[in-house]
Amino acid sequence: MTDKTASEAEKRLAEIGIELPSPPTPFGAYAEAVRSGNLLFLSGTLPVLNGRPQYRGRLGTDLNAEQAWSATRLAALNALAIAREHLGSLNHVSRVVRLGVMLATGDDSMDLPKVADAASELFLEVFGPDKTSVRVVYGVASLPLGLPVELEVTFEVAT
Amino acid sequence: MTDKTASEAEKRLAEIGIELPSPPTPFGAYAEAVRSGNLLFLSGTLPVLNGRPQYRGRLGTDLNAEQAWSATRLAALNALAIAREHLGSLNHVSRVVRLGVMLATGDDSMDLPKVADAASELFLEVFGPDKTSVRVVYGVASLPLGLPVELEVTFEVAT
Amino acid sequence: MTDKTASEAEKRLAEIGIELPSPPTPFGAYAEAVRSGNLLFLSGTLPVLNGRPQYRGRLGTDLNAEQAWSATRLAALNALAIAREHLGSLNHVSRVVRLGVMLATGDDSMDLPKVADAASELFLEVFGPDKTSVRVVYGVASLPLGLPVELEVTFEVAT
Repeated sequence: MTDKTASEAEKRLAEIGIELPSPPTPFGAYAEAVRSGNLLFLSGTLPVLNGRPQYRGRLGTDLNAEQAWSATRLAALNALAIAREHLGSLNHVSRVVRLGVMLATGDDSMDLPKVADAASELFLEVFGPDKTSVRVVYGVASLPLGLPVELEVTFEVAT
Repeated sequence: MTDKTASEAEKRLAEIGIELPSPPTPFGAYAEAVRSGNLLFLSGTLPVLNGRPQYRGRLGTDLNAEQAWSATRLAALNALAIAREHLGSLNHVSRVVRLGVMLATGDDSMDLPKVADAASELFLEVFGPDKTSVRVVYGVASLPLGLPVELEVTFEVAT
Repeated sequence: MTDKTASEAEKRLAEIGIELPSPPTPFGAYAEAVRSGNLLFLSGTLPVLNGRPQYRGRLGTDLNAEQAWSATRLAALNALAIAREHLGSLNHVSRVVRLGVMLATGDDSMDLPKVADAASELFLEVFGPDKTSVRVVYGVASLPLGLPVELEVTFEVAT
């Protein structure tokens, strides 16, 4: 059972010098975040900045693991930006519950876990090692806007 | 936090003249809906009618965006039919929490969000703009029965 | 609504002569299981044994349905092993809530539901017919380590 206490995420973010991007806005009839009970569900987050794609193509054929890693980190920063906007402060997050990592792959890449670590390690830095999530990683056939990665993050909110 | 009050979904459905199809039945050792706490999880819903596929193939190579849109709307109607059967009435739904849209794609389609809107817009019509879900959309390599789209819908039930 | 009572899963497991493998350990900065409220979320489980892949390739081109079925059953046994390790006993599971089945497919395989039944039927045997899950099945472009199947299992824990 998680302890559902507030975290010190905002302090950690400041200490490691991370500034979050402006939170993405929906491009369709959906919401970026929905809370139900203590769970905060997020829409798929993408490697975009101010609405503009920052990376395109597929891991293995168009992007190498380092580029896909950077794209994944940006998508994870967008997830944090949405959570902060929705909750007022990331300190209200008691833990990351689930991280889904969908990577557009052009071949049988062996780098899926390594690329997914870009998001897991960011959340580890921000929320601490006892608040890591479960993780599901797989390669998909295509993603919106030809982007290389989409994350699905579910947070638990402190009571 | 959502307000978890009942919705007027049945009245809206009648007003916009929508008749739901017969709810699909499982073709395997699983259930079409499982409630846990206030969440109602649904199995993947497909563009079938009375057990028969209504669309086949992939977005981009076999189906254009309009056809895939219609297939997605039918899958969303099936999700509503399952929820009504399980809950007795769609009025017990307090909101749509999560919508997953998995599209079989044959190329780097740019139409994923547009096609996914078929489900989002139906739910918006039925449940209202303050009860929209988060959304995760991606292209997959293949789907059961060669169908073009599968939805995964999670509802919140009013207390 | 589920009744959230303990199950007799351990007794059933013994009766049908199943010994669970050693639970897998993470290969990245994530946890194998996270509990939030009454839900126990698991990371993607794979057909590995003691950290070593037991199957490789794609359904349809590299593996036939029988081989993919066996791989899926192994991944499901790993999910049970993780749940037992996390909860102390599988009797604390009140039901399986959700089963996601992601299969690496090399063609338009018609065998997705049949292969997914390997996991559904195992859970049916262990937890009983009134505790089956919802299910979402689709073909993906690639999986970690070139494995043919990944499961995502969510359990409900008895109160």
